[in-house]
Amino acid sequence: MFIRNDWYIAAWAHEVPPGKLLARTICDDRIVLYRDASGKAAALEDRCAHRGAPLSCGEMVPEGLQCGYHGLVYGRDGKCVYIPGQASIPPRANVKSYPVVEQDEFIWIWTGDPAKADPAKVVPYPWNNDHKNWPHKPERYHVECNFMLLVDNLMDLTHLGYVHKGTIGGNPKTHVEAKMDVTRTENGVKYTRWMLSSVPPPTYVKAVGFKGLVDRWQEFDFHAPGAIHQWSGATNAGTGAYEGKREGGFSLRLYHGITPETERTSHYFWAGANGYRQDDPAATEQLYQELATAFKQDLTIVAAQQRTLDHYKSVPYIDIKADNARVHARRVLERRLAEESGQPLPTLETA
Amino acid sequence: MFIRNDWYIAAWAHEVPPGKLLARTICDDRIVLYRDASGKAAALEDRCAHRGAPLSCGEMVPEGLQCGYHGLVYGRDGKCVYIPGQASIPPRANVKSYPVVEQDEFIWIWTGDPAKADPAKVVPYPWNNDHKNWPHKPERYHVECNFMLLVDNLMDLTHLGYVHKGTIGGNPKTHVEAKMDVTRTENGVKYTRWMLSSVPPPTYVKAVGFKGLVDRWQEFDFHAPGAIHQWSGATNAGTGAYEGKREGGFSLRLYHGITPETERTSHYFWAGANGYRQDDPAATEQLYQELATAFKQDLTIVAAQQRTLDHYKSVPYIDIKADNARVHARRVLERRLAEESGQPLPTLETA
Amino acid sequence: MFIRNDWYIAAWAHEVPPGKLLARTICDDRIVLYRDASGKAAALEDRCAHRGAPLSCGEMVPEGLQCGYHGLVYGRDGKCVYIPGQASIPPRANVKSYPVVEQDEFIWIWTGDPAKADPAKVVPYPWNNDHKNWPHKPERYHVECNFMLLVDNLMDLTHLGYVHKGTIGGNPKTHVEAKMDVTRTENGVKYTRWMLSSVPPPTYVKAVGFKGLVDRWQEFDFHAPGAIHQWSGATNAGTGAYEGKREGGFSLRLYHGITPETERTSHYFWAGANGYRQDDPAATEQLYQELATAFKQDLTIVAAQQRTLDHYKSVPYIDIKADNARVHARRVLERRLAEESGQPLPTLETA
Repeated sequence: MFIRNDWYIAAWAHEVPPGKLLARTICDDRIVLYRDASGKAAALEDRCAHRGAPLSCGEMVPEGLQCGYHGLVYGRDGKCVYIPGQASIPPRANVKSYPVVEQDEFIWIWTGDPAKADPAKVVPYPWNNDHKNWPHKPERYHVECNFMLLVDNLMDLTHLGYVHKGTIGGNPKTHVEAKMDVTRTENGVKYTRWMLSSVPPPTYVKAVGFKGLVDRWQEFDFHAPGAIHQWSGATNAGTGAYEGKREGGFSLRLYHGITPETERTSHYFWAGANGYRQDDPAATEQLYQELATAFKQDLTIVAAQQRTLDHYKSVPYIDIKADNARVHARRVLERRLAEESGQPLPTLETA
Repeated sequence: MFIRNDWYIAAWAHEVPPGKLLARTICDDRIVLYRDASGKAAALEDRCAHRGAPLSCGEMVPEGLQCGYHGLVYGRDGKCVYIPGQASIPPRANVKSYPVVEQDEFIWIWTGDPAKADPAKVVPYPWNNDHKNWPHKPERYHVECNFMLLVDNLMDLTHLGYVHKGTIGGNPKTHVEAKMDVTRTENGVKYTRWMLSSVPPPTYVKAVGFKGLVDRWQEFDFHAPGAIHQWSGATNAGTGAYEGKREGGFSLRLYHGITPETERTSHYFWAGANGYRQDDPAATEQLYQELATAFKQDLTIVAAQQRTLDHYKSVPYIDIKADNARVHARRVLERRLAEESGQPLPTLETA
Repeated sequence: MFIRNDWYIAAWAHEVPPGKLLARTICDDRIVLYRDASGKAAALEDRCAHRGAPLSCGEMVPEGLQCGYHGLVYGRDGKCVYIPGQASIPPRANVKSYPVVEQDEFIWIWTGDPAKADPAKVVPYPWNNDHKNWPHKPERYHVECNFMLLVDNLMDLTHLGYVHKGTIGGNPKTHVEAKMDVTRTENGVKYTRWMLSSVPPPTYVKAVGFKGLVDRWQEFDFHAPGAIHQWSGATNAGTGAYEGKREGGFSLRLYHGITPETERTSHYFWAGANGYRQDDPAATEQLYQELATAFKQDLTIVAAQQRTLDHYKSVPYIDIKADNARVHARRVLERRLAEESGQPLPTLETA
């Protein structure tokens, strides 16, 4: 079961260059992504109406996307426009077409009711377009868990002190004792954490060479179903970050885009932008490497978690204080799922 | 569900040399193929009646096939003839025996009602025995699809222009515009295609060095459930091939034998015989390589097709004009399945 | 379905050194094995009560076993003793704890009703502690079959002449004609086999250099559900072994411990101890290599047997005379299963 009436990231724009067909499963739908003759992104069901061959095994021809088995050609609306050897096209010769929007370096897709697919509902992320101030290196990971476990992961940052002790995390106590403000939003939750006069984590020190304690912040903005905008940073302790003076230290903007592939697997699109040494490509690359190392640690733990949840299906789980933002996020997702399905949600676990 | 009351190819004769036990699954039955002391091919259920160990883990002894776990020995009729440590053999100590016939370099097997297994019903393919005029190199492929998708593949040759553009196919338009005659037969369908004054495909040119256009034919004879006899060729355009004078150019006889392994996998036995440069082993080898390349292309597309059909189970598909022979072949198979099962066929797809 | 109210071997003691967390599935329960601060072996359900992350991804801290995701800490009784960021521990914050006993170099576990877990019921195997007279090298194999197929394997030794012809087995006829005494015990079965004036198998000759015939014995003692104590040996024929004088030739004590992992897989713990050339580590190593080679042969056949039994689910099997001890062993296991489940046993096969 998926939340379908919303935009998900289908791909980074650069993953779909002209002439290339990209097969990708989203919300358990098999989809082929491509660009039409005008260069505009398009998405069709990856299944020829004739004999079921995947359209992603075909190729682009001037008239559209041609099946590689018997040559039928489809337009971006999914209607067949050419059948080899016959003049008439039967009305049933078509496949499902998905609304897509290209924005902020992403190709967004809508797998629900197309009539509700309003492009204005795509949550903007303008920093992706500001390469000068926010240079970044895009990445996509395949993750072996339900997309909600990834949302959970990002909504409870106490895991930084355990999972990422040696990378972006640092001292567990610092994270546990962080001052945290949580705000419910119309379609998600926002939280800010402050770790004043704290020891900077290894990643921060490597990036800008802190010598002593820092005032450190983490701002997270979750937009259901799958977008999380993060702004984190630190300046030398006592230099006014908490009061608003956040320039001159370490700062990063991190995009987390989570798209369900199947009930048990997800696509994780991310990019970290360095808000320091912006003219130095090595800074961007170093940040990427640090984040990649940390995210691989997350991928290991959430996949193990998924396997355990699958094995122990009807066991109750407990919420703890640190789950404050996470519980809000889950409630939003569960409400959305219940709305779409018209029935109470069979949750993955019992709180 | 399988058509069982008919002969399928279990193996090429050379795959079962004396003393060797060959484990092979056919129509979801696990079978061990071997030769008895007289050299005659035999087939038993691959399961000892004692503790269920596969008989194919055993070995041939003078008295028969001996289980490699506790030493029980079986005759070719499946009856146990020896139990270590005891004189009497219980009447239930036996396994299923399958009728087999060795003919035309194949070992044929009957997985249905043994009382109906008439050796005269094996469809002859005499060209396999005529090595002088039709030299060939036998092959077997394991294919990740239901056997009917392979039959489909061979009944709609418009795929040659798309799947095999660079090998045995050539120009799509040529195939689409071929003149095609389809004839229903008692247990199958026959079709002939003519491409007069057409550009010869790469394989043909490599084989006999055509300089200009050719008159090209393809004759296919499908015998349900799994045998397809192909005769294809070409001579220089306008030299009378259509009127009957088919000698002196390119010509091949191609055997396609398709045997269900499981509902989702098949065995594909094939051999292409060059009807030109018969004294030159390099010609046979070159033809084999060309066909092997092309068939690997088929295997990729039919496996992808199977996965898509499995994923989108209840979606309707459409027939096109080019499906003329294919639709006849399917009707024969579906009628046979319905006859055996005594119930309407749950087709893989809806036409 | 498993026999749960009994002790199984969870691990060799050396597999759980201080500070290490060992994840192991036993009777389909996911379990983490470790040693507490005092060095005493412990076993918890491998699942954090907070969000389901496997505890085996965590680490030992002074207070107990700490989850590697969000830092909850558990004691050996499964009760949570620390939750980062909060003082109170909810009463539901705990995971299942399993009774464990360390004895005879094994860590034993009880997956059934903890109230019934009497340490005195662990079947002793004192030879494991007598390294001087019974040197041995411990091993564990993962086996692709239900644990009962491994018990079967060891209860019908006629397989030695077929499966292990070239290693520990030797002549099939010798095994089939062995004099065999079978005794039912309170919770298992015992049997002794004598092969008087028989040709010694290759392993025996390699070990002690027999020149002629031997008097050879095999004593097996099966304690349900999974322990088999073996004592085998041989002395020069006619020197009085049958009458009780078993010293001076070849002799080995072999422990077989079989623990269900899932319905279709098992753990096989074994160690062979050489009762000859005890001061020569090469003798222990050579025996280990011979046994390892033989047991790999067993693993291959029982895995093939399991796949066949799975495929042919409702087929009847037959018992033969050589199954005497095996049938007793099965009856004990089936009675135990029926007792625990309160219902008749759905056997893997029909006798």
